[in-house]
Amino acid sequence: MTTSETPKRSIFFLSDRTGITAETLGSTLLTQFDEGSFRQSTLPFVNTPEKARSALEYIEHTGAASGLKPIIFSTTVSDEVREILREGSVVFLDLFDMFVPALEGALETKSTHREGRAHGIADEDIYESRIDAMNYALTHDDGVGENGYKNAQVILIAPSRCGKTPVCIYLAMQHGVYAANYPLTEEDLERRTLPPALKEHKAKLYGLWIDAERLHQIRSERRKGSQYAALPQVSYELRQAESLYKRHGLSYSETTNKSIEEIATMIMQDKDIRRRSF
Amino acid sequence: MTTSETPKRSIFFLSDRTGITAETLGSTLLTQFDEGSFRQSTLPFVNTPEKARSALEYIEHTGAASGLKPIIFSTTVSDEVREILREGSVVFLDLFDMFVPALEGALETKSTHREGRAHGIADEDIYESRIDAMNYALTHDDGVGENGYKNAQVILIAPSRCGKTPVCIYLAMQHGVYAANYPLTEEDLERRTLPPALKEHKAKLYGLWIDAERLHQIRSERRKGSQYAALPQVSYELRQAESLYKRHGLSYSETTNKSIEEIATMIMQDKDIRRRSF
Repeated sequence: MTTSETPKRSIFFLSDRTGITAETLGSTLLTQFDEGSFRQSTLPFVNTPEKARSALEYIEHTGAASGLKPIIFSTTVSDEVREILREGSVVFLDLFDMFVPALEGALETKSTHREGRAHGIADEDIYESRIDAMNYALTHDDGVGENGYKNAQVILIAPSRCGKTPVCIYLAMQHGVYAANYPLTEEDLERRTLPPALKEHKAKLYGLWIDAERLHQIRSERRKGSQYAALPQVSYELRQAESLYKRHGLSYSETTNKSIEEIATMIMQDKDIRRRSF
Repeated sequence: MTTSETPKRSIFFLSDRTGITAETLGSTLLTQFDEGSFRQSTLPFVNTPEKARSALEYIEHTGAASGLKPIIFSTTVSDEVREILREGSVVFLDLFDMFVPALEGALETKSTHREGRAHGIADEDIYESRIDAMNYALTHDDGVGENGYKNAQVILIAPSRCGKTPVCIYLAMQHGVYAANYPLTEEDLERRTLPPALKEHKAKLYGLWIDAERLHQIRSERRKGSQYAALPQVSYELRQAESLYKRHGLSYSETTNKSIEEIATMIMQDKDIRRRSF
């Protein structure tokens, strides 16, 4: 070996189902440590003793190669699978091991040991409502399908490319929320009143806003050198949009330094939309 | 009060940021207990001592009303906020409290106490790649945009309404995967060969399949009584699709009793697609 790189510690997100909960758990915890020094992978569907032994063999192999004991973030209901993994030359951190005793104490009842249902079809109604909401978001994107606004729980408005579509789809996918969106065109902005299609839905409106430099950059990726992407044009649209939001007392937020998840959470708080139950 | 309903215990998912991690954590743990008896809500952005006190007051109030001590699933980095919540008349279960000591031991280093970044814009590149992937999924949905197949990491194929679009969008949103999809039409299925547009991308193809009764039901919601929704038609298309998958040695899976997350995980395993790093 001629490489002089510092070896990285291997991190595994391991689960008897999709691994999404283990990833969320582990990655949140790792934000509290120096992330640069980890090599992360996900091992889903580890739900039998055989698969557990084979996974452990692989995990221990990576540990031997780096000289650093691998860490497993696990969400695995089977006692037998957990037992196998715990015996390995690894740091084994399991969600159920950590929390279930405290919960059993608080609830004064024993846990059921049911296999992980968090990202399965636990409840068909909830599943269908997410699919319905997503279909709604896709057919009410970008001002299309105005007739359906009466079914919207929120209608996002903003100039083009401020992030309306991803937020709508996220709201549908994650929370089953019916979210439509309407792009404020230059005509809308010049008119200085709410677009006619939106007037009767004022309580559902939520504005997005973004830093002008950032919007200039985003639009330039689409149509470089165009009037549409020019900084003065972008600045004008954003100024007009903000004054429209203020004039009509609409809630709005800046999206420049926020993630889709954060924006979605703020919108749901503002509109008092209940999250789908789990 | 004339109601004789059993009081439900209140569960709170509380966080200094979006609350998504706390929800995932708590709802996974609650799958191990009888879910019918809980009333769940999410309290995001609890990031100052003032907000913590006000949240606690509300939480304790719900506990007093039901006579059952509320449970808080928390992911809150601030020691001060955690201290306030811990003192309440509640069961306080915090992710960092539970795991950080074990992790500090394993890593032989102290945690940084940085505020929750798991669902913020931790890394702008990852954020942009998710948005790019989502735009890709939206412009390569339903066979539109065949020219872009060379950039796809996976192309889902199936008869109409088997679940291609939600899975593509989920792959993009959650994992930053470039996923296109192609609807197998009746002509495609009669031809018994791969559609010309797909021939050179055979390694990227992944088939979806669904129970005929279920597809009949889904299509009937769209076009009740139509030939398109009729059970014999649906059964024919599904038989032909499955024999196409088999004839060309394509991976495929049934979606009837699977969640979007499970299907996405299986596809990524099959195509050996690395998840975006966290």
